[in-house]
Amino acid sequence: MAKKMIGKAHVGTNPTVIAGALVNGKPNYLTLGHAGGMSMNPPIFYISCNKAHYTNAGIKENGYFSVNLPSKDMVKKTDYVGLVSGKDTDKSGVFTSFYGSVDKAPMIDECPACILCKVIDTVDLPNNDIFIGEIVETYVNEECLTDGKPDVRKINPMLLADGYSLLGEKCGNAFSDGKALMNK
Amino acid sequence: MAKKMIGKAHVGTNPTVIAGALVNGKPNYLTLGHAGGMSMNPPIFYISCNKAHYTNAGIKENGYFSVNLPSKDMVKKTDYVGLVSGKDTDKSGVFTSFYGSVDKAPMIDECPACILCKVIDTVDLPNNDIFIGEIVETYVNEECLTDGKPDVRKINPMLLADGYSLLGEKCGNAFSDGKALMNK
Repeated sequence: MAKKMIGKAHVGTNPTVIAGALVNGKPNYLTLGHAGGMSMNPPIFYISCNKAHYTNAGIKENGYFSVNLPSKDMVKKTDYVGLVSGKDTDKSGVFTSFYGSVDKAPMIDECPACILCKVIDTVDLPNNDIFIGEIVETYVNEECLTDGKPDVRKINPMLLADGYSLLGEKCGNAFSDGKALMNK
Repeated sequence: MAKKMIGKAHVGTNPTVIAGALVNGKPNYLTLGHAGGMSMNPPIFYISCNKAHYTNAGIKENGYFSVNLPSKDMVKKTDYVGLVSGKDTDKSGVFTSFYGSVDKAPMIDECPACILCKVIDTVDLPNNDIFIGEIVETYVNEECLTDGKPDVRKINPMLLADGYSLLGEKCGNAFSDGKALMNK
């Protein structure tokens, strides 16, 4: 294939998540695309927050953050909490907050799936704080479970790719389709 | 909504990427779901590799890794290089390798988009090495560019969610739809 070197651009998809934190004692929410898993065992998740954000000080102070997966009917509010800063705007009432067993980071009741993370490490990049958190508790709407496990098709999360997009059709089976090429 | 606490499960979507590295001087490839962006400026990307993997030593030795986005017609080979270890199986011939300006990590010609990363930091988790890399060069198939920029709809990457899945329909505009809620 004819490939072109196009500089240092990111390519691919990002998830759409709303990070939650307590800042000066009030819930604050921030939409992020740079977030994801780092480890299955123990379960570890990270978020990347630009150092200009208001949220970072609250995560550092409390040692906890939440990761909330908004559904497509929440797209306006999701985009809104990414557009305005907690410095200027009180975002505590945009969503209905709830807390898990540790009340150091709020979660969003309207989101079908939420995880509460305890900060175990941070990475100081030039313009971003990377918060690495061990998952403490995961909350999922009952109607989004199949056999007691979270079902990504029922959660129907958004991606940050071509604006906000949904998960599309299945095109293969993991840890399975490649077996056809083994021992050849 | 009635929420249930279901333990410490990961929820949401992961990208499907194939990490590339030189191990003992030969190209090796490994499919990963825990990978993603960490910073726009400078452009920084991470991959998480379980410490059991053969690839890790090669990344540590050379200081570089690549991230390759496979297309759906590559699903069998993508799954295959995630199923078998380079310890037992020479994976150097599964794909056509190419190199950028630095020949310390191979990239996959069959993939529509590839990035070459230089390791700038690592995080030592209990079972995973997190390699944090600054993007050195991005290569994209010419037919996947729109106005010279990578077009995620043309690249059509796979997600690791419900097996392998594609990106679905657009459901909102980023940095735009939320403006309707501003100054209210």
